[in-house]
Amino acid sequence: MLRTNLGLRIPKGMRDLLPEEIAVQEGLEEKILVLFRQWSYQKILTPTLEYSACVQPDVEQDDSLYKFFDREGRILTLRPELTIPIARLVSTRMRSGEFPLRLCYGADVYRNTNVRHREFRQVGVELVGSNQELADAEVIALAVEAIAGLGLNNYQFNLGHMGIFSGLMMESGVNERVQVELEEVLARKDMVGVESCVRQSGLPERVQELLLRLPHFRGGEEILDEVLGWSAQPAIREAVESLRRIYQYLNDFGVQANVSLDLGILRGFSYYTGAVFEGYVPGIGFPVVEGGRYDSLYGDFGIPQPATGFAIHIGNLLEQFPLPAVEGADVLVYGSDAKQIIRQCQVLRAQGKRVEMALGALGKDAAQKVALQKNISQLLLVE
Amino acid sequence: MLRTNLGLRIPKGMRDLLPEEIAVQEGLEEKILVLFRQWSYQKILTPTLEYSACVQPDVEQDDSLYKFFDREGRILTLRPELTIPIARLVSTRMRSGEFPLRLCYGADVYRNTNVRHREFRQVGVELVGSNQELADAEVIALAVEAIAGLGLNNYQFNLGHMGIFSGLMMESGVNERVQVELEEVLARKDMVGVESCVRQSGLPERVQELLLRLPHFRGGEEILDEVLGWSAQPAIREAVESLRRIYQYLNDFGVQANVSLDLGILRGFSYYTGAVFEGYVPGIGFPVVEGGRYDSLYGDFGIPQPATGFAIHIGNLLEQFPLPAVEGADVLVYGSDAKQIIRQCQVLRAQGKRVEMALGALGKDAAQKVALQKNISQLLLVE
Repeated sequence: MLRTNLGLRIPKGMRDLLPEEIAVQEGLEEKILVLFRQWSYQKILTPTLEYSACVQPDVEQDDSLYKFFDREGRILTLRPELTIPIARLVSTRMRSGEFPLRLCYGADVYRNTNVRHREFRQVGVELVGSNQELADAEVIALAVEAIAGLGLNNYQFNLGHMGIFSGLMMESGVNERVQVELEEVLARKDMVGVESCVRQSGLPERVQELLLRLPHFRGGEEILDEVLGWSAQPAIREAVESLRRIYQYLNDFGVQANVSLDLGILRGFSYYTGAVFEGYVPGIGFPVVEGGRYDSLYGDFGIPQPATGFAIHIGNLLEQFPLPAVEGADVLVYGSDAKQIIRQCQVLRAQGKRVEMALGALGKDAAQKVALQKNISQLLLVE
Repeated sequence: MLRTNLGLRIPKGMRDLLPEEIAVQEGLEEKILVLFRQWSYQKILTPTLEYSACVQPDVEQDDSLYKFFDREGRILTLRPELTIPIARLVSTRMRSGEFPLRLCYGADVYRNTNVRHREFRQVGVELVGSNQELADAEVIALAVEAIAGLGLNNYQFNLGHMGIFSGLMMESGVNERVQVELEEVLARKDMVGVESCVRQSGLPERVQELLLRLPHFRGGEEILDEVLGWSAQPAIREAVESLRRIYQYLNDFGVQANVSLDLGILRGFSYYTGAVFEGYVPGIGFPVVEGGRYDSLYGDFGIPQPATGFAIHIGNLLEQFPLPAVEGADVLVYGSDAKQIIRQCQVLRAQGKRVEMALGALGKDAAQKVALQKNISQLLLVE
């Protein structure tokens, strides 16, 4: 049936990958997965489709999921990320494993928002079953090494902690609605929204000032001492001391110079509970690495386990790399006798050569033209 | 938020792949894609989501697509296969390429039917731009070599041609409704349905007999001569002569012994127009390879090109292979001084070792237990 204009198009946010594009994406993924393997992470895969009851049980929450009904009327979603599906998997088929578990993946994820790519490739790790700061430091160091290993220059990681914001909220006794609003505008780094939200919050003047400073609180270890002066709230002290230990471990890993402390990092509507981090590369206005500690998610799946991890959006990194030339075959075998051509192709393939077989009788000039256009270096006439 | 029972489950037809399962699947895919590459096929990838207007423009047709609306009210589908999406891609971004094009892919496909796997991995090729029987033979030989290369024994390929059935229909001048019904029951090899459908067709007695024999018409080249005795219909003669040439080329490729002629192969509701083939392995009751010639599809996308290709359902082949043992790290590094442990891990990783780092102080007995359970062969105590 003849296609309409729509039938020739690709849905918004989707893309085709031509040979040279897929070569770049697979090259990035392979490099990173080899590194994950060296750090003893094991590859697993969850399906594209999950029940909404798994990935987003709170039906009142706005989200950016692709959702639809199955034949029984249950809501299916395309996985928007892997952390929650992996929690489902670990809490079922892998619950008898030896914790801590180190798992990794490479998979496409789907987000129905107004971003350029609504389907994009992610690689990431989950380290499940350790509450140690050494575990936080391991995944951060691994993320830094993964990005560094791609040959990207001037990447930058920021490290914060959910406990500082939540400690401030606890101390001020603010209601949950205001807290959620504040967390969301802060997470989006929407400074106009932060200002207006803070001013209308009814919070004590001192807390208002601290909240307004939060997004600008970036630097080295010295900012931690300053935060300790703010408040005697145990949650804040704990968060600061935890960050300090992680930051020292990052020094032991040799990656501290690539990581700034940034107390303004927050993740609205998320499962993160502790240290959180982001990685940026020049020319991309959003984090290409997102990760952190999430100690309550596994409890939601019935097996309480502390956990930390990260994802790298490699689909968004493609444009950072030059496209290689399309790699043609090694040899084009042509002539007029099909039987001889087939035989010759088989001989060359058995030698490990990449061989293109001419279909139909081809003269020398035509063969040269084909070889040129397909970037095939050698021609073999069979007679 | 605590998950309900549904939130702990996986949707019907979906599956998780544990480390040893994904290792098998990736191993199969890699082996086959290396072969495709040697035969000069270039890898491409289309997105998971397509407009229904692309993959199934006929809204009246029953199908097994996962479908839902986008925000503009257009119908999106999860790709059920790659041949049509690749036709969309070739007819847009690749239309100025040098035909014949040889393309290949490895991707998940989705079918909303009552089968065991509704998401499964496919690898396949498309050879676009040649109407030569040599092209048919090339893809059939490649499919046979791909299956043989996996080390599967007793696989069996069957080769038929759409032109024999359609020639019989042309000759008998039957109406389209009956023809579609007949094609469908024959494609399903539903013998009871075939019998009843043929008997009620109103076709001449002689054509009825031929149709009833069609599903049993299997063997070597001798069956082609018999078919020529049936009818002088040019479409039938052409189909038979075309099959004969393809079958002779398969001999040149050295794979004829693995391929039987089977005039009962039909594909209901499909784009196939010429030679069609299927591959079977013992223990799986449906074809694990499906392919054939489809010479009218590219015209539907505005660039008429003859084409042929096939897909291998590797997701369904997994159970044919034993699962390997989970491969643990080479070394577990443990002790009580985190700084020294980190340093030692870095040294060993730089040597190419796969290293697991103990998190938190670990004694010798505990370390031995961990190593045993995680299949790690070497222990290194750092003090």
